[in-house]
Amino acid sequence: MVSDSSTLLYPALSADHPLNSGLTHDATLIKAYRGERSETLPVWFMRQAGRSLPEYRKLREGTEMLESCLRPEMASEITLQPVRRHKVDAAIFFSDIVIPVKCAGVDVQIVPNVGPVLGEAIDTPEKVAALPELDDAALDPIREAVALTVAELGSTPLIGFGGAPFTVAAYMVEGKPTRDHLGPRSMMHADPETWHALADWAGRVTAQFIRAQVEAGASSIQLFDSWAGSLSLKDYQEFAQPHSAKVFADLDDLGVQKVHFGTGTGELLTAMKEAGADVIGVDYRLPLDVAAQRVGADTPLQGNIDPALLTAGWEPLKADIDAVIAAGKNAPGHVLNLGHGVPPTTDPDVLTRIVEYIHAQPGR
Amino acid sequence: MVSDSSTLLYPALSADHPLNSGLTHDATLIKAYRGERSETLPVWFMRQAGRSLPEYRKLREGTEMLESCLRPEMASEITLQPVRRHKVDAAIFFSDIVIPVKCAGVDVQIVPNVGPVLGEAIDTPEKVAALPELDDAALDPIREAVALTVAELGSTPLIGFGGAPFTVAAYMVEGKPTRDHLGPRSMMHADPETWHALADWAGRVTAQFIRAQVEAGASSIQLFDSWAGSLSLKDYQEFAQPHSAKVFADLDDLGVQKVHFGTGTGELLTAMKEAGADVIGVDYRLPLDVAAQRVGADTPLQGNIDPALLTAGWEPLKADIDAVIAAGKNAPGHVLNLGHGVPPTTDPDVLTRIVEYIHAQPGR
Repeated sequence: MVSDSSTLLYPALSADHPLNSGLTHDATLIKAYRGERSETLPVWFMRQAGRSLPEYRKLREGTEMLESCLRPEMASEITLQPVRRHKVDAAIFFSDIVIPVKCAGVDVQIVPNVGPVLGEAIDTPEKVAALPELDDAALDPIREAVALTVAELGSTPLIGFGGAPFTVAAYMVEGKPTRDHLGPRSMMHADPETWHALADWAGRVTAQFIRAQVEAGASSIQLFDSWAGSLSLKDYQEFAQPHSAKVFADLDDLGVQKVHFGTGTGELLTAMKEAGADVIGVDYRLPLDVAAQRVGADTPLQGNIDPALLTAGWEPLKADIDAVIAAGKNAPGHVLNLGHGVPPTTDPDVLTRIVEYIHAQPGR
Repeated sequence: MVSDSSTLLYPALSADHPLNSGLTHDATLIKAYRGERSETLPVWFMRQAGRSLPEYRKLREGTEMLESCLRPEMASEITLQPVRRHKVDAAIFFSDIVIPVKCAGVDVQIVPNVGPVLGEAIDTPEKVAALPELDDAALDPIREAVALTVAELGSTPLIGFGGAPFTVAAYMVEGKPTRDHLGPRSMMHADPETWHALADWAGRVTAQFIRAQVEAGASSIQLFDSWAGSLSLKDYQEFAQPHSAKVFADLDDLGVQKVHFGTGTGELLTAMKEAGADVIGVDYRLPLDVAAQRVGADTPLQGNIDPALLTAGWEPLKADIDAVIAAGKNAPGHVLNLGHGVPPTTDPDVLTRIVEYIHAQPGR
């Protein structure tokens, strides 16, 4: 328990921050992110807060996605729902990677079954140059939601949430989700200056967004580079990694552990680590022992149960979990998770059973 | 020129087959697929026959996609259009990977801007067991289209076309295109017997479909495993590779070179080669020198200009082509192509210019 501000472990955070007050400092999740093992393995699920839960669907009825992210009580309640139900070892802040874009004043909404759609694509030098700065006060609903959440969570850590600059900027260039991200990948080569200006902007508003969450009480953060797998290593290194690195560097003074995740990123894991991540999230395609060889045996790992197995019955699912736990022994710390987000059609009871099963296994 | 059937180079094919008659036997494409270099580098484009061409859009007006594949004159004309326009070194047969599924009597159509949609998903043991065999006579329109095409092509080889069993079966289990292929990937583990029966069926009808094309005049074939990149190496080896291997083995007696391609398959290339492919197509993510290290220096390669660069202006595109040609020197034979299909919005003049540029480079 740390109560004297002169002895703060995380000097950039307040004395009563869950990390400094000691509430979450030794949670199994935070220890694993630091590379330490506990008696039990920590587990949470990407997209655990969301459409797989009936209580979520009920609460969201009649409220648009981004609107629900900006109503502090609702965002907090949605964040807490899976913790209560599944007894996972962490909450992930319910939000969206385009929230800082919206808070900066860009016209964007989440269209159901489509994803983020912008009023107009940000695909010219003029539109990029005209992007507004993000007034920090616009993030007050985020800070409020986080504060409400950590007050309820007690010793369960909250993970802050943000999108990596490449992925956020990719949505902005296309104006909507696409499969191959041809627009942003073309812009990188056709007009690198405009690309870098846009990715820099996306990184700056995302860093503000994540900082707000940590200062209000989040105990670690995860940067999602959902679309990074569409890049060659060379393009990743030149056009994406420097901007992710800047986000991580911007947050360094906070002292929290930083997780980095993308899908289809087997070839990029080392470069993603080198961007400044402390922990690497691995998608379901790559066994964790292979991932550990690539990123180095000193790197804590998160992952990577195959979401496809959530509907395959308990025996195949259990076999996969056992294999993931065994492969994870190659990392100094291991946080169990899926190798991608929870599919909306998932039976939540399966997730609860996974948590019970993992908590019954030895953590060392 | 081979005219005496006792000296046929390809004894499973007729004496007047373009390969046996000598018409295509020494085409730069066929030589490159055999691992030999010519004075110039051969080039063609995946999806070169299709929506990027105004003459295609005009011809297709009012005709559904699969219907156009089954009208011999139309399929042949569409196949020929890009050869006339771009002077590419090969035609790729205009068809769809679900054509053999449809010809077997399964209710499937291509919905514009969506993809293959089945009347009902084939997602139970009963539905898989009830799948009809493919009557070879149902492929007569394919044979006729190929014969019309090679008669016009002369010394330009036609590449036969088919979908790998995993990708075809994935569409069948979901009943429609999906992003993560959760249904088929779940079925593999939940009910491996049903999965294998379905993939075996998909492989059998595809082998019939490809054989029909080769016997009617195609000089090589390409098996597309578009969705293989969604699989871990372990799942690929257990649930996809054996079925692709069976297709390749079924076609072995024809003696033609067999190309294998998928996207996001960097981690799977060696396993795809080991399925029985002679040539590996590489997507835009992986440089060809790295691909050559993985699959072995004796393997001809095809690829892998980044389609995103088609809209980036000539200088960045030329730089990519130059890098692809240089990296391709690590393979015994190299066929230039895109690292994915031609996007529908591509300016066809850019493709023509690429062909001219590549043909002006030394092939050795």
